[in-house]
Amino acid sequence: MSNDAFYYKKMEEYIKIINSKLHEYFNVPELPQKIVYEAMQYSINAGGKRIRPVLSLAVCDLLNYDVYEILPFACAVELIHTYSLIHDDLPCMDNDDYRRGKPTNHKVYGEAMAVLAGDGLLNLAFEIINEQLLKCQDLELLKRKIKAACIISKASGCGGMIGGQAIDITSEGKDISEELLMHLHNCKTGALIKASVISSGIVCGARETELNALDKYSQCIGLAFQIKDDILDYEGEMQTLGKTPGKDIISGKATFVSLMGLDRAKSKLDELMLESVKALACFGEKADFLKFISDVICSRIF
Amino acid sequence: MSNDAFYYKKMEEYIKIINSKLHEYFNVPELPQKIVYEAMQYSINAGGKRIRPVLSLAVCDLLNYDVYEILPFACAVELIHTYSLIHDDLPCMDNDDYRRGKPTNHKVYGEAMAVLAGDGLLNLAFEIINEQLLKCQDLELLKRKIKAACIISKASGCGGMIGGQAIDITSEGKDISEELLMHLHNCKTGALIKASVISSGIVCGARETELNALDKYSQCIGLAFQIKDDILDYEGEMQTLGKTPGKDIISGKATFVSLMGLDRAKSKLDELMLESVKALACFGEKADFLKFISDVICSRIF
Repeated sequence: MSNDAFYYKKMEEYIKIINSKLHEYFNVPELPQKIVYEAMQYSINAGGKRIRPVLSLAVCDLLNYDVYEILPFACAVELIHTYSLIHDDLPCMDNDDYRRGKPTNHKVYGEAMAVLAGDGLLNLAFEIINEQLLKCQDLELLKRKIKAACIISKASGCGGMIGGQAIDITSEGKDISEELLMHLHNCKTGALIKASVISSGIVCGARETELNALDKYSQCIGLAFQIKDDILDYEGEMQTLGKTPGKDIISGKATFVSLMGLDRAKSKLDELMLESVKALACFGEKADFLKFISDVICSRIF
Repeated sequence: MSNDAFYYKKMEEYIKIINSKLHEYFNVPELPQKIVYEAMQYSINAGGKRIRPVLSLAVCDLLNYDVYEILPFACAVELIHTYSLIHDDLPCMDNDDYRRGKPTNHKVYGEAMAVLAGDGLLNLAFEIINEQLLKCQDLELLKRKIKAACIISKASGCGGMIGGQAIDITSEGKDISEELLMHLHNCKTGALIKASVISSGIVCGARETELNALDKYSQCIGLAFQIKDDILDYEGEMQTLGKTPGKDIISGKATFVSLMGLDRAKSKLDELMLESVKALACFGEKADFLKFISDVICSRIF
C-alpha cells in the first residue's frame, strides 16, 4: 500500500469513529421537541468532510495519546462548525439553498427551526464538553481539558468565528484590504481549525515547543483552507462543489482571488502548504499524517 | 424601613452588581468586528429585569456564601436568557418589533447581525464559565463549579430552553393539551430559572435537603413566571408591557389563560406562589429574600 493510500484509509477510519460518536449524541428519548434534534442531525449528516475532528484525532495520534480521550472535544468542534454553516446559510445571511449538494437546513425545516437547530448544536457542544469535565477523575488531565474548553469556546466566539462572520456580512460589497480579509478568515475559518489542533495538543499533554509547532501548522492550514475555498469558488462547478459557484464574487464578497488574482492566490496556497509542512519538522516522520491532511486540504476538489 | 423596602433595596443592589459585571464583559479592544459586541450589548442593556441572576445571588446570600463567587455564572445565565430573546424576536420566529418598549435587536442591527449577536451571547456565556473553571484553584469548589456548568448548559439546550422554543413554534395554531403547555414552559422558561437557582446552590455547597427545597421553589416560580406572563399578555397594555399586548392570543399561541381561562390561571398562580414559599420552610427567616422575589414575580405589572 502506498503512503497516500495508507493515510486515506487512516482518515476514513477516523471519520468512522467520529461519525459513530456524533451519532450517539442524537440518540435521544422520545420528546415533544424531537424535531429540533432531527433538524440538528440533518445537518450533521449532510456530508461534512470532518476536517476539524480528524485534525484533533491526528494530533492525538502524533502525540501517542488515546484518541477516545479527545473524541468528545473533536465532535464538539464539529457541532460548532455545523451550527455556523446552518446560520450562515440563512436567508438573512448568505441565503444559500444548497450546501454540499443538499438542501440547506432552513429549506427543509424552515427558518425558525434552522435558527434553533444552530443554537442547539452550539449548546450541545458545550454540554458535551462540560460532561467530559464532570467525568474526568485525573486532576492533571482535568486541568488540561479545562484549558482545551477555554480554547474552543474562545475560538468559536466573537474574537474568533462569530467575529469573522460579523466582518464578513458588514464588509459585503465594500472594498476591503488584504489585511482585513486575512483577519476575517483567520477569525471565521482559521480560529476553529486552530482550536481543533491546539485543544487536542493540550489535552494530550504536548510540550511547549510541540504546541508552538502545532500552532504554526494550524495557522497555515487554516488560511490555506480558505484560499483553496476561494479558488474553488472561482473555478468550481455546481456538480463538484455542491453549492452555487462564483457566488461570493457575484454577491460582491471580497475573496483572496478577487483581491490577489488567481495566480497569486495559488502561489500563496502553495507557500502556506510548504510552511505547514516545515512547521512540523520537530516531529519527524511521526507527523506524516498531519502533512497528508494539509495536502488533502490544498489539493481537494470540493 | 419596612421589610419590602429593605428587600427592594437589596434587589437593587444586586442588580447594580450584576450590571456592573455584565458591563465588564463588553469592555473589549478595538476590533473590526466591534459591531457584533455592540449589538450584543444593546440587548443586554435593554432593560432586562435580571430575575435569573438576582435569584442566583439571593441563593448565595441564603447560604452565606460570597456572591462574587457565583456572579460570573449568574451573568452567564443572563447572557443566555438575552440571546434567547434576540432569536425569539426574529421575523422568522415571533417577529416582534419591540421588546421592553425598545426596538428589538434585528430592528436596530438587521437580521443577520441579530442572529450573530444571539450566537455571540450564548458563546460568551460559556467562555465566561470556562474561564471561571480555569481560574479556580480549590479542587472541591472546582468540582462544584463544573457541576453548575453542566446544569446551566443542559438547561439552555434542547432538553430545556431551546427544546421549549421548538415546541412553541411547532405548536402554533394547534390545539395542545395543558400537559404539553406545561412541558413547553417548564423547558422554555422554567429550565433556565431553575438552573439559576440550583447552579448557585451547588456552587455554594448546599446540602441535599437544601437543594431539594431550592428545586421545588424554583420549579414553582418558573411556572408562576410564565403564567403571570400569560395573564399580563391577556390583560396588559402596550405602555406597561413594552410589547404588543394580546399578541400570543392573536397569533394563535396556546397560553395558560387560553387553556385554563383567566380565573383558573390566576388561582394557579396564587397556588404556585404559596407552594414556592412553603418549599423554603427548612431555611426559616433566612429565605425571606427569596420569598420576596417570588412575590415580585407574581405581582409584577410588566
